[in-house]
Amino acid sequence: MSKVTVLKFGGTSVGTIEKIKEISLYLKSRTQSDEKLIVVVSAMGKTTDSLLGQAAEITSNPDVRELDTLLAVGEQNTISLMAINLNHIGVAARSLTGMQAGIKTFGKHTKSKIADINSDFLLEQLDEFDVLVIAGFQGFNENQEITTLGRGGSDTSAVALASAIGAPCEIYTDVTGVFGTDPRLYPDAKQLRQVSYEEMLELSALGAGVLETRCVEIAKNYHVPIYIAKTLSETKGTWIMENTDLLEKKVVTGVALDKNILHVTLTCEDCSSNFVEELFNQLDEEGVNIDMISQVVFDRMINISFTCKKTDEHFLNTVINNLSNGFPTIKKHIRDNCSKVSIVGSGMRDVSGVAARAFRLLCKHNITFYQVTTSEISISYAIDEDLSEEAVRLLCSEFNI
Amino acid sequence: MSKVTVLKFGGTSVGTIEKIKEISLYLKSRTQSDEKLIVVVSAMGKTTDSLLGQAAEITSNPDVRELDTLLAVGEQNTISLMAINLNHIGVAARSLTGMQAGIKTFGKHTKSKIADINSDFLLEQLDEFDVLVIAGFQGFNENQEITTLGRGGSDTSAVALASAIGAPCEIYTDVTGVFGTDPRLYPDAKQLRQVSYEEMLELSALGAGVLETRCVEIAKNYHVPIYIAKTLSETKGTWIMENTDLLEKKVVTGVALDKNILHVTLTCEDCSSNFVEELFNQLDEEGVNIDMISQVVFDRMINISFTCKKTDEHFLNTVINNLSNGFPTIKKHIRDNCSKVSIVGSGMRDVSGVAARAFRLLCKHNITFYQVTTSEISISYAIDEDLSEEAVRLLCSEFNI
Repeated sequence: MSKVTVLKFGGTSVGTIEKIKEISLYLKSRTQSDEKLIVVVSAMGKTTDSLLGQAAEITSNPDVRELDTLLAVGEQNTISLMAINLNHIGVAARSLTGMQAGIKTFGKHTKSKIADINSDFLLEQLDEFDVLVIAGFQGFNENQEITTLGRGGSDTSAVALASAIGAPCEIYTDVTGVFGTDPRLYPDAKQLRQVSYEEMLELSALGAGVLETRCVEIAKNYHVPIYIAKTLSETKGTWIMENTDLLEKKVVTGVALDKNILHVTLTCEDCSSNFVEELFNQLDEEGVNIDMISQVVFDRMINISFTCKKTDEHFLNTVINNLSNGFPTIKKHIRDNCSKVSIVGSGMRDVSGVAARAFRLLCKHNITFYQVTTSEISISYAIDEDLSEEAVRLLCSEFNI
Repeated sequence: MSKVTVLKFGGTSVGTIEKIKEISLYLKSRTQSDEKLIVVVSAMGKTTDSLLGQAAEITSNPDVRELDTLLAVGEQNTISLMAINLNHIGVAARSLTGMQAGIKTFGKHTKSKIADINSDFLLEQLDEFDVLVIAGFQGFNENQEITTLGRGGSDTSAVALASAIGAPCEIYTDVTGVFGTDPRLYPDAKQLRQVSYEEMLELSALGAGVLETRCVEIAKNYHVPIYIAKTLSETKGTWIMENTDLLEKKVVTGVALDKNILHVTLTCEDCSSNFVEELFNQLDEEGVNIDMISQVVFDRMINISFTCKKTDEHFLNTVINNLSNGFPTIKKHIRDNCSKVSIVGSGMRDVSGVAARAFRLLCKHNITFYQVTTSEISISYAIDEDLSEEAVRLLCSEFNI
């Protein structure tokens, strides 16, 4: 069988019929070199917003099952138009809705997760057709109901389809690739030719979110190489893939900034040892994701620091109030003008001294940090928000991002 | 189980979200008297035209499989919005696409026919929900492809659903019911309270086509009572159902006019007896539907007259040219300024003299006719087109339509 590739085009890329025609011509040129394509598309331009607007004319709290059926209309519109166009220009193409493509999902409406994809069916269809145009963002559940996948849904569809049939995945968007940092913060930032899954996961907090974390995780787990590039552009994009043995590997690949965090420190005097366990259990139950955890036990005092999203502040306070019943000596200190700056790079595994260089740099510029945590491939600092952008620029310059 | 009724609302009736809200309130009032509803809806307003317009921007000859997937978007939009609204106002409702509702079809894309409906599934759903909102006009075929039903598709969906679950079918539209003749021709025409399936089939050529023949045929075959009325109007509509024993049954129910016909007379001298068989076979092969057939064999001459649609003239001439090879003495006479006027009424079965009254009336007003045919419940005349509207008015007045 010919080589199979999954390509994904976002809403802006298929925003008009003219653009759909241009993409179709590009797809035709790909099939002419004996390649079979699975093309995942989003709803055209602002279609999803306009469908959400229709629902909002009725209620601010629509039934989510029906909202999914409504939203799925957008991608079905795109797939049929693209398939009409491909057939018109002589490409054997067929459109498939999420349900027709066999994208089985589980979990709640409007934020379902992909459970399984019927790859045998897709491979059969690829025997007969050169291009399958598949609706992104949508699937169906065990009750044969239409579901949607939430944020980053179409990218997730594409990566999951690629993993199901063992193909690489090309994601076409309106940026030329992945940068070492957000170019709006550091205009000299270079685009990366290649980045590992682990690095991409650490970098995914980066600005406009080139790719949702869930996509990168699927790609990593199923070894799907992802290529991110600008739609119909000659500019080379970025490969996200397994760590390779580049001869001249950069030590630091990128610098990420996450502004919307709280830095939390809790102390508890004479507390029993199950305090931390109880804290983590309750945070989990309230759906508060925590990060940068460090814990110190000193004398009879437990001292624990962590970060979480600003939007979780309400749930965090609920948990702390609950805990103060069982642990009356608990004290909290929340810093809400705080950012997380991370230095990321697979090369850090082998090269020491990155942390020391970064420390010296920040100290020299009087940028204090409240906490530092490290993973195998990253070092993260909790820094005052006002100083965080300067810290990013300094680090980018120091490590040649 | 509660009483189940199928209701159908056309595109104008659900043309705006405001109208969908009004219909939803009406449906809620119906469910409050312990009624379960299956609601079949069309695409909103001009949606189908706008989708066809999108396809036309690409090609005048779109792949029909993909065109069906494109068009199906329209009804899916309506069902989800109506279900969102019904749930919002406290009605347990669920939307179903043609595929989800189990409307299996066969035949060609864009003009598929309904093969089967999974009534067990629908009845199960009605245990759980008070209203099922089902996309009209669409179904799916044995390859799990989306199909559409062509002209009168949503009405056909509604009548077929009603037949599958043994429920009556209410069709809401922008006319108040069925009239004895086209009110534009004869403004005094009265609306019928009730009309039999057979009469409706004979009348269906009537003007703007209240209901396609295929719907009436399904209703007749499966004994589905149909009620046609104006959307959200207090005006009583028309029941289409089995012949009932009204005490004062009208002899003539309606007068129908079909202007787009050809009156064809063929003669063949010394022709073998298989001439007529050969003629009918070839007309059938070319897809020419013929009507008002009468045949006279006189001496050594076969003389056959019939009518067909004006749009079939090309195919008719092809057939006659083909036949002239085997039957060189064939002569044709085609009258293309001809109309068919029909008097329809189940009461004609029992009451004689209708034909005589009509003959006298037409003769008295110097309206000549080229042919007369009769069925059990109708008499049809082929009349010059210029005189046909006058003939309709005279007959309506004579028989108190």
